[in-house]
Amino acid sequence: MITVYGAYGFPPFLKGIVRDLRVYWALEELGLAYDIHWMDSSKGEHRENSNRLINPFGKIPSMVDGGQRMFETGAIVLYLYENAGKAPQDAHARAEVNQWCFAALNTVEPVFLDILRWDKFWMEKTGRAERYPELMGFADERLADLARAMGDKHYLVGNVFGPADILMTTVLDFARHEPKIFENHPAIRAYLERCHARPAYQRALAKQGVGPKANAA
Amino acid sequence: MITVYGAYGFPPFLKGIVRDLRVYWALEELGLAYDIHWMDSSKGEHRENSNRLINPFGKIPSMVDGGQRMFETGAIVLYLYENAGKAPQDAHARAEVNQWCFAALNTVEPVFLDILRWDKFWMEKTGRAERYPELMGFADERLADLARAMGDKHYLVGNVFGPADILMTTVLDFARHEPKIFENHPAIRAYLERCHARPAYQRALAKQGVGPKANAA
Repeated sequence: MITVYGAYGFPPFLKGIVRDLRVYWALEELGLAYDIHWMDSSKGEHRENSNRLINPFGKIPSMVDGGQRMFETGAIVLYLYENAGKAPQDAHARAEVNQWCFAALNTVEPVFLDILRWDKFWMEKTGRAERYPELMGFADERLADLARAMGDKHYLVGNVFGPADILMTTVLDFARHEPKIFENHPAIRAYLERCHARPAYQRALAKQGVGPKANAA
Repeated sequence: MITVYGAYGFPPFLKGIVRDLRVYWALEELGLAYDIHWMDSSKGEHRENSNRLINPFGKIPSMVDGGQRMFETGAIVLYLYENAGKAPQDAHARAEVNQWCFAALNTVEPVFLDILRWDKFWMEKTGRAERYPELMGFADERLADLARAMGDKHYLVGNVFGPADILMTTVLDFARHEPKIFENHPAIRAYLERCHARPAYQRALAKQGVGPKANAA
């Protein structure tokens, strides 16, 4: 049985954005059964030593699958697809999947996450007037690059929905509160709508943040 | 034959930090032959459309290996080890390698890269007095977490040097100009010294930034 270490107790505007969603989404796409070990993020339970035994950096989510204890959403989502026999067998095709997973988390996420931070967490910090327009420019560039790379494909790799799409969607969603970012990029907007419309995404979203009380109810 | 798209023309203090080093290092560890297609980063050649055909986000490095065109250092380094038969065959062991590669690039890099930015690129930006001490605190926490996770291991996964160590070393090196960050973490300092001492690292470092003129000389 798979156990995901997930979060509850966060502000409602973060529903759909906290990273445990990525793991629930992959599990729902693959039709795998799982339990959620809920941690109250408002009390910082994820930063306690008991969680650092599974996730050394005191973050959410982690996953335990029998003897396999894992952290880092990129690695967890890739593992789930591979273990379910839904990853490419061919090393070249697998490299392309990896490449787009790293692109989502290492090239796109930093820009979109900082937009979220400046808008929702760093309201009192100085420097916004200078940094924010710069971030908007980077976001626009990333979306233009992404749209060009995708061309008329429906999904990032081989036109089949997979791990990279889970990561890319949730990363772009960090800026969903600023819809004007996406206005000049209708292909990306359509891509996000396509991914959000998947029943597995909807099921994952419904589980996110629900917490132990709702389970018991 | 493998071709790496690498950079020259950057300020000397970036030698050892620009991301193409990661790919040279992996190739040197694996004893693979390669050419370097040099791009003059001072002229922004990496941002031109010709490079965006290989690297959609206009960044350095990319790699072409026969029919395989790749970007994202995390994916390239993993691909090189796998293609050379030096990656674990077992899905569980491979997941552990992936996990530490993502940890380097998605959990450690953001903190250490921002320290580099504030010290070397953002001297004129407002907000440093507020943000910098916060980043120092995060860096200290990441190093403590990393040291605890490594215990007495010499390398990140299975006590054998591999892709995750290449990524982690180069990520931690973003803050090498601030040695006091590492003062309270002797195990991490020793880990970095161990990785830097590898002959393959030294060979990769010697190639970085050399550029086409030196090749012709």
